[in-house]
Amino acid sequence: MQNKSKINVGVVGATGYTGLELVKMLIKHPFFHLTYIANSEGGTTINKLHPSLNGVCEDVVQKADIDTMALTCKLVFLALPHKTAMAYVKPLLEKGVKVVDLSADYRLPQDIYEAFYCPHTDAKNLEHVVYGLPELNREAIKSAKLVANPGCFPTSAILGLLPFMDKRIENTPIIIDAKTGVSGAGKKLSEVTHFVNVNDNLFAYNPLLHRHAPEIADKLNVSFDEVSFVPHLVPVNRGMISSIYIQVSGDFDALDVVKEFYKNDVHVRVSASPVDMKNVAGTNFCDIYAQRKGKMLFISSSIDNLMRGASSQAVVNANLMMGFDETTAIPDIAYVP
Amino acid sequence: MQNKSKINVGVVGATGYTGLELVKMLIKHPFFHLTYIANSEGGTTINKLHPSLNGVCEDVVQKADIDTMALTCKLVFLALPHKTAMAYVKPLLEKGVKVVDLSADYRLPQDIYEAFYCPHTDAKNLEHVVYGLPELNREAIKSAKLVANPGCFPTSAILGLLPFMDKRIENTPIIIDAKTGVSGAGKKLSEVTHFVNVNDNLFAYNPLLHRHAPEIADKLNVSFDEVSFVPHLVPVNRGMISSIYIQVSGDFDALDVVKEFYKNDVHVRVSASPVDMKNVAGTNFCDIYAQRKGKMLFISSSIDNLMRGASSQAVVNANLMMGFDETTAIPDIAYVP
Amino acid sequence: MQNKSKINVGVVGATGYTGLELVKMLIKHPFFHLTYIANSEGGTTINKLHPSLNGVCEDVVQKADIDTMALTCKLVFLALPHKTAMAYVKPLLEKGVKVVDLSADYRLPQDIYEAFYCPHTDAKNLEHVVYGLPELNREAIKSAKLVANPGCFPTSAILGLLPFMDKRIENTPIIIDAKTGVSGAGKKLSEVTHFVNVNDNLFAYNPLLHRHAPEIADKLNVSFDEVSFVPHLVPVNRGMISSIYIQVSGDFDALDVVKEFYKNDVHVRVSASPVDMKNVAGTNFCDIYAQRKGKMLFISSSIDNLMRGASSQAVVNANLMMGFDETTAIPDIAYVP
Amino acid sequence: MQNKSKINVGVVGATGYTGLELVKMLIKHPFFHLTYIANSEGGTTINKLHPSLNGVCEDVVQKADIDTMALTCKLVFLALPHKTAMAYVKPLLEKGVKVVDLSADYRLPQDIYEAFYCPHTDAKNLEHVVYGLPELNREAIKSAKLVANPGCFPTSAILGLLPFMDKRIENTPIIIDAKTGVSGAGKKLSEVTHFVNVNDNLFAYNPLLHRHAPEIADKLNVSFDEVSFVPHLVPVNRGMISSIYIQVSGDFDALDVVKEFYKNDVHVRVSASPVDMKNVAGTNFCDIYAQRKGKMLFISSSIDNLMRGASSQAVVNANLMMGFDETTAIPDIAYVP
Repeated sequence: MQNKSKINVGVVGATGYTGLELVKMLIKHPFFHLTYIANSEGGTTINKLHPSLNGVCEDVVQKADIDTMALTCKLVFLALPHKTAMAYVKPLLEKGVKVVDLSADYRLPQDIYEAFYCPHTDAKNLEHVVYGLPELNREAIKSAKLVANPGCFPTSAILGLLPFMDKRIENTPIIIDAKTGVSGAGKKLSEVTHFVNVNDNLFAYNPLLHRHAPEIADKLNVSFDEVSFVPHLVPVNRGMISSIYIQVSGDFDALDVVKEFYKNDVHVRVSASPVDMKNVAGTNFCDIYAQRKGKMLFISSSIDNLMRGASSQAVVNANLMMGFDETTAIPDIAYVP
Repeated sequence: MQNKSKINVGVVGATGYTGLELVKMLIKHPFFHLTYIANSEGGTTINKLHPSLNGVCEDVVQKADIDTMALTCKLVFLALPHKTAMAYVKPLLEKGVKVVDLSADYRLPQDIYEAFYCPHTDAKNLEHVVYGLPELNREAIKSAKLVANPGCFPTSAILGLLPFMDKRIENTPIIIDAKTGVSGAGKKLSEVTHFVNVNDNLFAYNPLLHRHAPEIADKLNVSFDEVSFVPHLVPVNRGMISSIYIQVSGDFDALDVVKEFYKNDVHVRVSASPVDMKNVAGTNFCDIYAQRKGKMLFISSSIDNLMRGASSQAVVNANLMMGFDETTAIPDIAYVP
Repeated sequence: MQNKSKINVGVVGATGYTGLELVKMLIKHPFFHLTYIANSEGGTTINKLHPSLNGVCEDVVQKADIDTMALTCKLVFLALPHKTAMAYVKPLLEKGVKVVDLSADYRLPQDIYEAFYCPHTDAKNLEHVVYGLPELNREAIKSAKLVANPGCFPTSAILGLLPFMDKRIENTPIIIDAKTGVSGAGKKLSEVTHFVNVNDNLFAYNPLLHRHAPEIADKLNVSFDEVSFVPHLVPVNRGMISSIYIQVSGDFDALDVVKEFYKNDVHVRVSASPVDMKNVAGTNFCDIYAQRKGKMLFISSSIDNLMRGASSQAVVNANLMMGFDETTAIPDIAYVP
Repeated sequence: MQNKSKINVGVVGATGYTGLELVKMLIKHPFFHLTYIANSEGGTTINKLHPSLNGVCEDVVQKADIDTMALTCKLVFLALPHKTAMAYVKPLLEKGVKVVDLSADYRLPQDIYEAFYCPHTDAKNLEHVVYGLPELNREAIKSAKLVANPGCFPTSAILGLLPFMDKRIENTPIIIDAKTGVSGAGKKLSEVTHFVNVNDNLFAYNPLLHRHAPEIADKLNVSFDEVSFVPHLVPVNRGMISSIYIQVSGDFDALDVVKEFYKNDVHVRVSASPVDMKNVAGTNFCDIYAQRKGKMLFISSSIDNLMRGASSQAVVNANLMMGFDETTAIPDIAYVP
C-alpha cells in the first residue's frame, strides 16, 4: 500500500526491541509511511513478533532483501547487529536509498573500529558518514545520506560531558559509571538476562574495556586512555544513567552551564535535582543534572536506552535528513508511573 | 488561553496517578483543550507535581473552585476520592457542566453505596447517571451528562465475564482472583506500598470483602453472595489481571464466544494464549483469554489499572459524551518492553 | 573424607537451584555428612557452579555414577528431571541406599503418571514408595526406603486444603489460583524467564492442564475433574502462594480449624491476616490463612517453592527416615527484609 | 530467663531492619543469650514487630530502660538513630556494660562529627572508642568496651580501598560511585521508598555531600576534599556495591594485591570477575574485584548493607570483644537465588 503524500521508509531488523520501538513511532508518523518491515527470516507479521501490536499494526514482515528495500523505500532504518549492517549499507546507498544505521558499523574511524570490532568492508562510506547526535551534528545530519546512530552509552555520556569539555582540566581522567536496564542486552537468551540472576541484583560488566568507551573518546576528541567507562546491569527493563566524574577549573554554576549549552535543544532537559530513569522512559529526552565540589564535577545524565539510546534518536535523525522538524512523531510522554 | 475550535475541559485532582494520566492524554487530544487543572491546594504547576512533564506541559494547577470550573470548562474529569467527588458533581451539573466522575460515588444504587461506603448526599443525580463501561452502555453514555467511571477491578472482571453470563450455570459461584500493580493503591504513603514490603513479595488483601465486589455483582445482575472477589498486590507498577472461574453449560468454543461478543469493540482484544500485563500497559485495551475444562471456565482478563481501569476509559467516555470517535487520543501503543 | 559419627549422604543434580538448596542445608547438618555431590558432567566444584559458596563449600562435583553413590552414601537426594530420576532409583534401592526423589517419578500411581508424563520403567518401587508430605505421612516416612518428595504447587495446595476436606460440599469445584516465583522454572534459559519478559509483568501458564493438578487431586482423594488449577508466573525470585476457593458447609471458625488440624506440626503456621511470600522465604514453613463468606471459603497458603516446595522438605524427609528430629538443620529464619 | 553458661546480651532498637537482623543472629548464637530486647515504646513482642519470627522467637519487647539493660546484659547492641544512641552509651559504660553502637555517634572525631551531624554530648568516650572494622582494628576491638560499628557505605568503600592505599598516586581523587538497596533507607515511610517511585527506576541522592563521605576520608587518612562519594538508590531490597576509581602507580596484579592483603580475613573474598549483590546477601562477606587500565584502577566491592554494613559486623565485633572466634553465629549462606 503506497501513500502518495508521505515518504516511504523501511525497518530492517524488526524482531528486536529497537525494531519494535521504530515501528511504534513510524506507524504514528504524519510524514513517513512505513512500507517495508523485514527481519532475517520473514514469513510473519509484526504483531506475531510483538503481540502488544495486536489490533494496532499487523503488517507483514518480509525476509530482508535489498532490491525490495530499494524499490519500496526512500530511507531505511537498519536495526541489525554490527557487521551485518555494513553489508546492507553499501548497496542501499548505491541504489540511492538513505540509511540510518543503528549498529556500530559507521560510528568510528576505520582503525578504531577494527581494533574493537572486526575488519571493515565499506571504508568508502566511512568517509562521508555523519555521527547522528543532533546536538553535535544537526546541520550535517540534514544533508547526510548515511547517519551512524550513536550507541546508547555514548549518547548519555557525551550529552552529559559536552557542556563541560572546555572547563575540564587537561589530562585528568573522565570517569563514567553507567547503569543500564536489561533491554539493552537485547532479546537474546543468556544467563546474564535470566530473571533470577538480575532481579534483586546488580553487577558491573566489561569494566574499563567495553566497546562503547572508544566511541565516547573519539567523539569527545580525547584519547581512549583518558576515558574510564564501567557499565552496570540493573534490575530495570529500560533506562540508562551515566554518573560522570571529571575535574574542572574556573568559576561557574554547573546547571547554568548545561542550560546555556543546550538552550536550543528541545530534547535535553536540565534538572535541578539528580535525574532518575522513569522521567525519560519512553521518550527521546536526555535529563542532565550537575553538581560541583571543589575541582570535582559530578554529572548525572539519563536517557531511555531504547529511545534516545537507539530508536527515537534514529527517527529524529531521519526527520532531519528529510527536512522535517526534529520533534515530529517523537514521544515526549514518559512511562510514569 | 482559550482555543476557539476545541472543547474546553478540566481535570480536578491533578496530584494523583489518574490525574497525571488524564493530563497526558488531554494535552495531546485534537478536540479537547485542557483549560483547567486543579488540586486541593493549588499554587503550583503540573510539572512540579509530575516532573516527567518538564518541558512538555507546565500549566498552572489551581486550587479547585467550582465557579472557575463552570466558567472555564464544558466537561470536567473528577479524579478525587469518593465522598469528595459528590460535593463537586451536584453544583457542576446544576451549572450545566458535564462530568466524568472517576470516584465510586455514582457507580452504585444508593442502598448498596451506603452499605459499603458512606451516606450519599446527591441521590437525585444517581437517578440518571450512566455507568461508563462503553461495551455495556455505549449509547447511553453518548447522551449522558454524568458518567460514573467504573472501578479498575470491576472493569477487568466485568469485561471478562460479560460474554459468558448467559452460559453460566445459575447459582454457581463467580470467583475472581485479581492481581494488581501498586499504582492502584495511589501515591499515599503506607507500609503496604513501601518498596521493601512489596518487592519480591505478593499477598492478598481485603479477601472476599473488597468494595469492588458489590460493584461487580450489581453490573452483572447477580447477588453479592454469588461473587467471591480477592485482590492480590503484586510487585508491578501498573497492570491488573482478573483470573476468573465460573461453571458453564452448553457446547461452545470459549475464544469464539469472546470474539463474537466484542466484534464491534475496538478496545477489547481476544488472545489465543493467556494474557499478560505488559501488552496492555499504557493503553486502553482489555485483553481476554478463556479456556474450558468440563464445566469449569477459566477467563483471564488484563487491563492497565490506571488507563482502562481509570483515566483512558474516562477519556473514552468523554469522547462519546461529546460526539467524537471513542478512540480519539486514546493510547494504543503499550509500554513494551 | 569420611566422618565416622555422621551418616554419609549424597546430592545428585547439584547444578540446579534445588541442588544448591540441598547443599546449603546439608553442609550445616549436625548428623549428615555430605560426602558425594554429582551432576551429569562432573569435573567441577560446587562453588564454581554456585559462586555464593566461595569460601564456604568448595567440594568436588563428580559425574553421577551409581556405584560410587552406593559406596559413598547411605542416603541420596535426587534433584533430577523426571524420567532421569527413575533410572537412578531402581539400582540405588537394590544396593541398599535410601532415596529421597525430588522429581515427579514416584509421586503418582502408574496410570496417572503415564497419562501426564511418560512410560514408567520402575513399577515395582511404586508399590512401596511414600509420598513425602510429613503432615500427611509422617509415620510412613520414618520407615520408608524411598520417599517421593511432593511437587511445589501440590505442597502449598494440599497443606491449605487438608484441614477443610471434611467440610467441603461434595462435588463442588476445588479452585487453586497459584502464584509462583521464577526460580520454580529452573535455570534453563527460555523466553519465559528472560528478565525483560517477567519484570513488571504477570501471566497464567498451562491453565487447567498443569501436571501438578493430578498430583493434587490424587493426594486429596478427589477426581482430576474436581480440581481447577491455574499457576501464574510473578516477578519474584522465590515464593509460592496458592489462593484456594472451595464451598463448605457447617458452622466453624476457619482459623481455628487450621490451628487444630496442625497443632502438632511445627512447620505449619496459622496467620491471622493474609499470608505473604517473604515471611516464609528461605524456610520450610507453610503459612496458612483462611476466611469465609457464606458457603465460600478462601484459603491462602504460602511456601518457599525451593524449600518447602522442594529441598527443605526433602531434608525433613531424610531426617525422619534416619530417625532424627524433623527440624534438624531446617532453616526457620526467613529472607526478610 | 537467665542462661548460666552463656553471656547475656541485649538489643535496643528492635523495630528496624538492623534490629531484626541482630535478633535473627543472636537467637542462634551458641555463646550469647539474648535476654533483653527493647524499642522506644515496648509493650509488644518481637514477632509482632517482625511476623517472619512467628513460631521462631516470640520474646517480649520492652520499653528501653538503662537500669534494666545494666541488670540484664553484659553487652548491648544499640540499633538506634544517631544522637539517640549517645544518650545510652554514656550511662551503659558507667555501669560496666559493653556496647556495640550501630549509629554514627562514635565513628568520627568530635569536630568532624559536629560538622556533619550535631553537637556531641559524650566527648569523653570518644577518646577510647574503637572503630569496629575488624580488618582494620581487630586487636583493638578485642579489648574495647565501646565499639563504633562502621556505616554501610564506609564499610564497602574502605574494604575495597585499603589494599591499594599505598599504591595510590597522592592527591588524585578517590571516586566512589555506590549503589544501595532500599532497606538502607530504613522502614520510615517516604516518597523515596514508595514502591512505584523505586521500581524500574534508579537515581543518585546527596551527591558529593552524603555524611558517609567524611567517615570514609577519616578512616583512610585522606582529606574530605579527596573523596568524591555519590550514592544511588537501586530497586533492590538489600545489597550494596561501591564502584571505586583511583589512580595508581607501580607494577602489580590487582587481584593478587587484594588476596595478599586479606589473606587472614575470612570475611573478605576476592572475586575473579566483577562482584554482584546476591552472592553476599544475607552474609557478612565482602566480595572484592579489581581491574586496572593504565593508571586507572577500578575496584568493585559488594556487601549486604544490613549485614556486613550493620548487624553481622556488629556481632563479629561482639564476638571479638567477648573472646570468641569472630565467625561464631555469623551467616555465610547467601540468599541465592
